[in-house]
Parts: sequence; C-alpha cells; structure tokens
Amino acid sequence: MPERFAVIMAGGRGERFWPQSRHRTPKHLLPIVGDRPMLAQTVGRVLGVVPRENIIVITTQTQLAGVQAVCPELPAANLIAEPVGRDTAAATGLAMLLVKQRNPVAAFAMLPADHVIHDVLEYQAVLRTAFEAAESADMLITIGVRPARPETGFGYIQQAGPWRKIDGRGVFAAKRFVEKPDLATAQGYIASGEYFWNAGMFVWRVPVVAAAFRQHAPELAAGLDRLEAALHTGRADAALAQVYPALPKISVDYALMEKSTNVVVVPATFDWDDVGAWPAVAGHFAPDAAGNVLRGDAVVEDGRGNIIVSADGHLTAVVGADDLVVVHTPDATLVCRKDRAQDIKALLKRLESDPARKKYL
Amino acid sequence: MPERFAVIMAGGRGERFWPQSRHRTPKHLLPIVGDRPMLAQTVGRVLGVVPRENIIVITTQTQLAGVQAVCPELPAANLIAEPVGRDTAAATGLAMLLVKQRNPVAAFAMLPADHVIHDVLEYQAVLRTAFEAAESADMLITIGVRPARPETGFGYIQQAGPWRKIDGRGVFAAKRFVEKPDLATAQGYIASGEYFWNAGMFVWRVPVVAAAFRQHAPELAAGLDRLEAALHTGRADAALAQVYPALPKISVDYALMEKSTNVVVVPATFDWDDVGAWPAVAGHFAPDAAGNVLRGDAVVEDGRGNIIVSADGHLTAVVGADDLVVVHTPDATLVCRKDRAQDIKALLKRLESDPARKKYL
Repeated sequence: MPERFAVIMAGGRGERFWPQSRHRTPKHLLPIVGDRPMLAQTVGRVLGVVPRENIIVITTQTQLAGVQAVCPELPAANLIAEPVGRDTAAATGLAMLLVKQRNPVAAFAMLPADHVIHDVLEYQAVLRTAFEAAESADMLITIGVRPARPETGFGYIQQAGPWRKIDGRGVFAAKRFVEKPDLATAQGYIASGEYFWNAGMFVWRVPVVAAAFRQHAPELAAGLDRLEAALHTGRADAALAQVYPALPKISVDYALMEKSTNVVVVPATFDWDDVGAWPAVAGHFAPDAAGNVLRGDAVVEDGRGNIIVSADGHLTAVVGADDLVVVHTPDATLVCRKDRAQDIKALLKRLESDPARKKYL
Repeated sequence: MPERFAVIMAGGRGERFWPQSRHRTPKHLLPIVGDRPMLAQTVGRVLGVVPRENIIVITTQTQLAGVQAVCPELPAANLIAEPVGRDTAAATGLAMLLVKQRNPVAAFAMLPADHVIHDVLEYQAVLRTAFEAAESADMLITIGVRPARPETGFGYIQQAGPWRKIDGRGVFAAKRFVEKPDLATAQGYIASGEYFWNAGMFVWRVPVVAAAFRQHAPELAAGLDRLEAALHTGRADAALAQVYPALPKISVDYALMEKSTNVVVVPATFDWDDVGAWPAVAGHFAPDAAGNVLRGDAVVEDGRGNIIVSADGHLTAVVGADDLVVVHTPDATLVCRKDRAQDIKALLKRLESDPARKKYL
C-alpha cells in the first residue's frame, strides 16, 4: 500500500466559543463535545487510517503548546506552527511541502481539527476510500456530506453523476463548488438531490495538488516554490517566518476547488457536524424536559431552550428566560441570545480594542 | 426633650438580591445602592436624631456577626438576634420590651434597615416631627410616602384629613391601612389623592403601642408578657430562645395598624425607595445610551435595558439580549428576565431542597 499522510488544520481563532475558547485555547483544544479535546478526537480517528508518524498538525504559534499537550502521541516534529494565519490555501500548500519532503508522491488528507463525528469506523472506511481514489487517478478527492437541512452556513458541492465504485462505494464526479448560499438557493439544492455539504476534507497526491496550485493559483504556487527552497536551506521556523506571511490569503475552496475540473466526491456515510458555534452544541447533549442543555452545575427555573455551561464549583441559574446561551468561566461570563451567536465576534472586536479587556481574548 | 429610641429591623432572608444576597448577607449588609451597606446608611441617618446608645438593631442569629461588622459605632448590647423570624409584629413587641427596660415611657421609631433615602436632612426633620407627634398624643405615628406610581407591591394608608400641624408640617389623621392592591385599585388610590405608600416606618411611645397590642393582638400581648418576665429573670438570649419561637407570626400592619383608630400619618417629604428586588436597582444608577445599568466589568453588545452586576476581576458580557438581570458572584451567577425577578424565590426553594446546592443560599 502506498504511504499515506494526514495533515490536520488546527488554527482556529478561538472566537465562536468564547469565553470557553480563547486565542490560546480555541475550540479544537477544548472538549466542547465529548470528553476529550476535539483535536485529540480527530487524531484518534485518523490513527486508524494513517500511522502516527505520518500525522502532521498545522497550528499557530500561540496554540503550539496546547497542541503538544493534547497530542502526546504525535512526534514533536510533526506539530508545525504557522507564523501567521494565511487561510486554508496557504496551509494546504505548506502541508503539501511538508509531505513532499518525506515522500514526493504520497497522498495526504487535509482535515479540520474540530468536527464532531461519532461513527468512527464508517469515517475511517470513507477516508480509506478517499485515499484509494486519490491513489487511483490524478483527481482531487473531497468528502461530501448529504445535507440534512438547507444550511446557509456551509459551502456546497454539486455532483455530476457516478465516477467510479471504490471498495463497493459509489464515488461521484463533482460538477462545481459553490459558496454559502442564501436560504432559497439552499432549499433548491436540497430539493435537487444533487448537492453535498462541503466538509472541508480533501485527499490528494502531492503532484496532483501541486499541479492544481500551478494551474489555478500561480501566485501562491510561486510563493510555495520560495518556501520550499527556504525549507531546504535552513530551519523550518525561519523559512516559514521569512516566506509565509507574504503568501496570498485565500481559501482552498476559492483558490483550487471552485476552479478545478478533476474533482470527485466521496459521500460521507458517517454522521458529521462542524459545531460552528454555541447553539450547535445543543444537538449533542440530552436536553431536560424543557429543552435546556445543562453542562456543569446549572439550573433553570421556568425557562426553555437554554444552553448553560458552568465552570467547576460555580452555580449558574436562569430564571424565566428562554433560548439563551449562558457560558460561565472563571474570569468571564457570556449571556447571548441563541439566535445572535454570530454577534459574539462584534463583542470580541470591542474587547480587542480595549487594552484593559484584551486579557479576556 | 424626652428620651428617644430607634429600633432598626435588619432581618431579611437574603432572597431577593440573590446571588449577591445570601442568608448570612442579606440586602441590608450589602451596598446594593450606595457605597456603604444599606444598614450602615440607615444607622448613619438615624444618628442625627437618636443618640447612638439608644439605637437598637434587631437581626437574626446568622446575620449577627455581619451586623456587628457593619455597625461598629453601636454598643454590642444593642444588637439583638431573634432566635427565629416571627414577622414584624413580634419584632415590634420585642423592640417595645427592649426600650421599656431602659425607659418605660420613651418613644421609639421602628425602621427598616434596607431602604434608600438620599435626602438625609429632610428625613431627619420628618423623623423628629414623628417623634414629636408621638410624644404629644396617644397616637400611633406612621410615615407615609406620596405614591409616585400605581405600585402593586406596597401597602397603602388612606388619610382622613388634617390632624395637626407640627413644626409647621401638616400631619394627617389616618383612615385605614390597606394591603397590596391590584393595579386598578392602585390607580384609583392615586387618582383620589388620599393615599400614601406605607413605608413601614412607625413611631410610638411604649405605653401606646403596648395598649394597641393588648387591644388588637391579645395572644401576642400575652406572649410578650411571658417574654418580659423571662427577660427579667435571666439572660436575653435564653429568654428569647424560650418564648420567642411560640409568638404568633403576623405582620405589624395586620396585627395593629389595620385595626387601630388612633393612627396619624406624617407625609414623607424626602425621596424613598425600598429597592425591593434587582429591577429596582436600575433607578439608582446612570444607564448607558441603550438603558443598560452596568456595575463592575460588564459590557453589552447590542442589547437594551439590562442590569449587569459583575464581581471584581470578572467580565460579564451580554450579546443581543434585552431586559435581563445578570448578576455574577464568585460562586454563583443569576440570569433572570427583568419582569420575572419575583421567581427568584422559586429558584431558591429548589436550591434549598437540594443538599448539594444549599451552600449557595
């Protein structure tokens, strides 16, 4: 079997789960859902498909210590800190170079660190199928999730009919990648039966993705050439610090996937949730009779649909209020209407601009 | 000038301002409004009218240490702990006996510990007028507040026309005491111009209130006779423990005021607020442009009319929510809709019934 790698992207900003998540401890370093940090769960799942010495984590300088603590089974040399975040296309390019140094023809998976997947065996089977697809043809392989609702927060992948069967699984040719739609468009996607959610999971061989960079993102490809040369001549940290900050800041969807014609979709036959913000947490815990999800010492007197998270040794009580997110931590507490969770970013921008309150980020 | 006493009732249960207030530290021991605990503010006001050795505080066993800490200027012997709360009629009877031991014909004021009054000089002038009224006739003197709104949370006093002028101030004969009305009734009271809020402040001479007990509350009067005898024979603590718990539990309004015909009303010409619960706190602090009252390190992102109280060193943030009371303390946090503050009691009843959560009371 050809050598396989997995590169886990663990560089969130720690905003959407504030105040539990912070710049130093974003969602993937926290057990937002489940008993272990999301990154540890991701590594655990991937270990069934890729040997531990071939699992690489790309994170940020501020989170590196946290990543090391959460991934004790991975070699320290496999934990790479970006000097600065440059979006997913640059991270994919960096991943490609890191894999290429070890095996210039290997396939590697690009995987987000912080998604919730309970059906581990099916996940591993699908990931193996994606590797086999990548190793069988010069294609960019993506994993598509069958949409459960007309979600406007995800990108979508439209399929263009069957491509091949691999391991008895039907893999589709991809017709196009589309960005987050409005509700009517999303409803149309679901009605058509032709669309998958883009889960941000990709598998490809180094030469195939390198060709995609060269064809569709030449400026980025040139920057990656400079980075590769710098990586050959000195320490990885110094090379990254020198070249990485100047790379174009662009998503891999926009830079490669929306422009490529050699894309196929492996349908995800496992459960999947990216748990994008506090309200999504509710779906992963049993609510009480009034639909409240209570974590830690929390109590609701005559209220419905609340999500309450209380730190150890502290009681958080809600009286007569519905549909709130209340998150208590030792130094900061958030009270947010469930349908306004996207506005946490605006709050954090205010804290960022206040020298006395930056410590809460 | 005849000797004057003041007895301050400081025995709240610490429920309405939970989680700042607790059984051991109810509202009167906290600086809910102002820089000093409410009781300290009350003692400070009364000191301008009654000498410190004649100011008595009736509190509870659990709050005695807190009262001592807050009233260092008062003689320790003047701080009396009820063995158990028996409502305001029994407390008035106890006050009467304590004053009678020192001066059997003196007048004394019964005053709540936890009201907010800013106009101290006018308050002291009114209190002096009330003393003079009590010393000039065998009447029960009450202080009535001109109603600012059709409040359904207070009792009312209807006046029956002028009684006398004292110190140039018009004092009214009282026609009747009425319990908390419904809204329509309260609106009628205000329209009539004949009603005052019952602020729970009374002044009377020992023999006059003793006669009222005997006439309108004979069972209580008999209990007070037993208590007086016990106080003569031994230590106050032991006497109280023996007799007090068996006294009828009834309010002074119901036991005496609603039944007496020798009542007059001195109009309060000072500002007054009993600050009965969290929502009432808002009126005592300057709100931000969106009507939020923020105490401690608190921030609101797009929300209106919230009251937020955050303990030192902790940030409390509200996002996209209106009209909430959010109170953070080191071991407990409350989130309550402003119009549901009365339901805090139901919450505390639940905590009371849970052995693991009694510590939060």
